[in-house]
Amino acid sequence: MSDIKMTEREVQQLVEGCLMANGCNHENAAALGRTIASAERDGSASHGLFRMPGYIASLRSGKVDGNAEPTVTRIAPSVIKVDGHRGYAPLALEKGREALIQAARENGIAAMALVNVHHFASLWVEVEPIAEAGLAAMAFTTYKPAVVPAGAKEPLFGTNPMCFGWPRGDRPPLVFDQASASMARGEVMIAARDGHAVPAGTGVDVDGNPTTDAQKILDGGALLPFGGHKGSTIAMMIELLVAGLTGMDFSYEAQENDSNDGGPPNGGEFMLAIDPNKFGDTEGWLDHSEAFLQRLAGMEGAHMPGNRRYANRAKSAVEGIAVSEKVHASCIEFINTAS
Amino acid sequence: MSDIKMTEREVQQLVEGCLMANGCNHENAAALGRTIASAERDGSASHGLFRMPGYIASLRSGKVDGNAEPTVTRIAPSVIKVDGHRGYAPLALEKGREALIQAARENGIAAMALVNVHHFASLWVEVEPIAEAGLAAMAFTTYKPAVVPAGAKEPLFGTNPMCFGWPRGDRPPLVFDQASASMARGEVMIAARDGHAVPAGTGVDVDGNPTTDAQKILDGGALLPFGGHKGSTIAMMIELLVAGLTGMDFSYEAQENDSNDGGPPNGGEFMLAIDPNKFGDTEGWLDHSEAFLQRLAGMEGAHMPGNRRYANRAKSAVEGIAVSEKVHASCIEFINTAS
Repeated sequence: MSDIKMTEREVQQLVEGCLMANGCNHENAAALGRTIASAERDGSASHGLFRMPGYIASLRSGKVDGNAEPTVTRIAPSVIKVDGHRGYAPLALEKGREALIQAARENGIAAMALVNVHHFASLWVEVEPIAEAGLAAMAFTTYKPAVVPAGAKEPLFGTNPMCFGWPRGDRPPLVFDQASASMARGEVMIAARDGHAVPAGTGVDVDGNPTTDAQKILDGGALLPFGGHKGSTIAMMIELLVAGLTGMDFSYEAQENDSNDGGPPNGGEFMLAIDPNKFGDTEGWLDHSEAFLQRLAGMEGAHMPGNRRYANRAKSAVEGIAVSEKVHASCIEFINTAS
Repeated sequence: MSDIKMTEREVQQLVEGCLMANGCNHENAAALGRTIASAERDGSASHGLFRMPGYIASLRSGKVDGNAEPTVTRIAPSVIKVDGHRGYAPLALEKGREALIQAARENGIAAMALVNVHHFASLWVEVEPIAEAGLAAMAFTTYKPAVVPAGAKEPLFGTNPMCFGWPRGDRPPLVFDQASASMARGEVMIAARDGHAVPAGTGVDVDGNPTTDAQKILDGGALLPFGGHKGSTIAMMIELLVAGLTGMDFSYEAQENDSNDGGPPNGGEFMLAIDPNKFGDTEGWLDHSEAFLQRLAGMEGAHMPGNRRYANRAKSAVEGIAVSEKVHASCIEFINTAS
């Protein structure tokens, strides 16, 4: 099947329709719609409509409450706690954002602990608005075990993404969002399909031995962290920041506690916001950091995180968003089969 | 030449003697002595007495003020600013530590911006006491360009270490400290000496092309970040957290502004402290995170960050610290040649 063209607004309406037909209220459906439409708009199909089956499965199983009303509490001067009350993360994130920004502006730095949410999206969607508000921001979350600690044979860490955003004044902020895994599972699947080897350090086989055979990684094996021991410690740090601080499940606990209905487990998330104006150099920090970023951008071959996303966004605004007919049809089916 | 055995106290006294003979006051010499003796004690010779030539060169050139009196100011409720006034970092770090811990205990999270310091040590030495006080902690610093951004051909980033500490109650804290470079330069030198290739992704040659030939990396080439693009964005993030927030030099600016006398350039450092008790789960966080760490430690082959350091520390307490005669002699020489 081929692709159909949709606008960002049409993607959002499609998501809202799917979710509301399956028991979500409008507020939750709209927040999730904005998240998924942003992913489709920016070329991140793997975090877009492709995830609807998981979202719908968790609504239908009752694991996720589509009518959850997140609550926001400032539990310490620089700590915002958001309880998602068993809902999807996007509404909880939107509800907590202003309090996090406010606390960071008052105190220089603030943290947000999200608890009792179901997170199934990219982190950049959450970090970008904080960086657009003029703050540096970081976000971390866990999932279920998929990544083998360096030197070990079995998965313990989730794919554990971390995200960092830096404000750039009138320019779009610099935002990177990267998993702790060496490679996305989808990329390993493509290598296996095409009969290509994957680089050393990508994963292990079913016995926990390192392999460059993509098919062996898929056949009961698992991914390794990016960058060997150093990436492994970062994946571990993310477990501690997220589960250790919020009190929610570590990835291995999420595996044990999840109903495995195909949607995201209940879990936590940890975010930071930092106001550069509160560090004593209110006049100069923006020009200073811009000079550095311009220097990096001017290096032949250097990769500027987020540039591909912004290029896709500009393209989507002109050409529309290409959505696979198959994915679109499955969304319509979710509306038609709602009870 | 062979090694001589010293106690931690003897190493510290040797450092103090060297520094005070070359114009350092006792307070600065003692702080640096504790830092260097800790490195020797924990088996990190590369950050121990081996660095004395750089320290002494910067005292003799007048770049570093051995009598600096760091000042500590709480410039926002969660931001501590420490001005090192052109001294070595250890005294500034010791002076700021209590204020950082206090602010984190009050507000849940706090940051420390160190400015106008000369940093030439390991970060774990600074993070460990904060984690011992029951807080999670992070530290980041820059240096001079040594690491090529992924895809580029010339260095822009410093070796840019990051350090993370997590409190473990009565146990020694979990602390990792890792450079953003793929490999320490000393390891590349050993590979070149032994005629071994280094792994793909370690470095580039003089023309900026990737190479696994260790000698070509040393002959005008440079190191790459660990973990390809993902490590590269972490090195970039560290530049922004350190220089972007503190207003001190980015690594490329430090290169331009340093006298290149062999000692560390003037620069900044960024630290975070987080009080897990302020995140709403005062009762459970320690047991919860211990269960995770025990699970990781119980995995065959898994690497527990910091364990080698603690093993070396225990060994040093029993057997003493092995210091090369050559390094020891150079320290005595610094005392004898002081003007």
